[in-house]
Amino acid sequence: MNDNHIVSSFDRELEQIQAHIMKMGGLVEEAILDASKSLKNRDEELAEQVRNADKAIDALEELINDECIKLIALRSPAAVDLRVALSVMKISGNLERIGDYAKNMAKRTSVLVHMTPVEGARGALRRMAREVQLMLKDALDAYIQRDVELAHDILARDHDIDQMYNALFREFLTFMMEDPRYITPCMHLHFIAKNTERMGDHVTSIAEQVIYLVTGSMPDDIRPKDDHYKPELHIAD
Amino acid sequence: MNDNHIVSSFDRELEQIQAHIMKMGGLVEEAILDASKSLKNRDEELAEQVRNADKAIDALEELINDECIKLIALRSPAAVDLRVALSVMKISGNLERIGDYAKNMAKRTSVLVHMTPVEGARGALRRMAREVQLMLKDALDAYIQRDVELAHDILARDHDIDQMYNALFREFLTFMMEDPRYITPCMHLHFIAKNTERMGDHVTSIAEQVIYLVTGSMPDDIRPKDDHYKPELHIAD
Repeated sequence: MNDNHIVSSFDRELEQIQAHIMKMGGLVEEAILDASKSLKNRDEELAEQVRNADKAIDALEELINDECIKLIALRSPAAVDLRVALSVMKISGNLERIGDYAKNMAKRTSVLVHMTPVEGARGALRRMAREVQLMLKDALDAYIQRDVELAHDILARDHDIDQMYNALFREFLTFMMEDPRYITPCMHLHFIAKNTERMGDHVTSIAEQVIYLVTGSMPDDIRPKDDHYKPELHIAD
Repeated sequence: MNDNHIVSSFDRELEQIQAHIMKMGGLVEEAILDASKSLKNRDEELAEQVRNADKAIDALEELINDECIKLIALRSPAAVDLRVALSVMKISGNLERIGDYAKNMAKRTSVLVHMTPVEGARGALRRMAREVQLMLKDALDAYIQRDVELAHDILARDHDIDQMYNALFREFLTFMMEDPRYITPCMHLHFIAKNTERMGDHVTSIAEQVIYLVTGSMPDDIRPKDDHYKPELHIAD
């Protein structure tokens, strides 16, 4: 009886924390979309909004962290439940980093509006960000529903994000070589592209947590972490 | 009596885990030094060694993670001890990421040796890496000795790293504008500089953990996280 009581208290409190994760996820998705929209439309006001909205995301991470520590300290969960609680902390860490990258995109947008526009790139970056936002939505669904198939699907889609990044990297190099006026804006755009690719890596890390929680082991085809070297960078040497 | 027994078991096991943290820290310091040396001397063989050595760092992180989970699950520590155990996991995560950046530096070195050398930059990058390695050494000492003063010193020194990065960023822009042949190597060197600056952020995060563990609160002047926008990037627009 006592054991059952402990288990269900744990589950109930975990559910509450997961509701905060979903709320945080919603804010992060919005930040990605708004940041890329502000970049596309050279909208400084929207960029400013994204920068301010990041505080709420950070506050949620702190709240979730505290809730998890309290849950672990008070409920002394067995190893399996402990891993679940730790995975929640990891996921909120991933979400916070994605939010940071969106904020950084907004900050660079505020600088880029005063520079020579680089045609085409902003549209491509917005499509890439949109793709990452959809992946994040699915990753959180996969987490809540413990859907391993969907999680594997996200791992596969992250390769598309990597390819979009590589294509943009080549495009930026071409722009910079054609006209030195493009060098500074392209450096910023390149950072945005790289950071968007990193958002994809953090989404993938959420999907990996799902696979780990359900199957007990990490996916075989574990994908490279942030900023691992990509063979495509061998170009133009 | 029973309580004392539990506390000392926890402490003994924590000490064992901390020994692994120190071992991991030593390997990461070595990786930073070797990677920057391989870059400076265009030494492909040493770069290859750094790439291979990263496996041992990753394995140690996994081991420490498992040990911490076991410690928490078996000893059910009170909130204070729980925070210590969680901080160990965070620190091993920071070390793993620093190791990843060193590995990435080594990978880019293997590409850069086949490109036009950019005079001066490799020396400056090596000095920056050396500075980060010394900061890391001190951060781990501060952790073991719970030395808040040393931890604060590290926070201050990270600003120097940020300034080194900003100076290099400007230098790379100048090179790229002068001669298009420098664009591709400078893109790689710029990544290396940015990643070295990020290593500094992870070292700072270790120092912040020390301050948090000793004082119970994060430092007031909390420093910006990775890749937050720097005002210096406003240049040349």
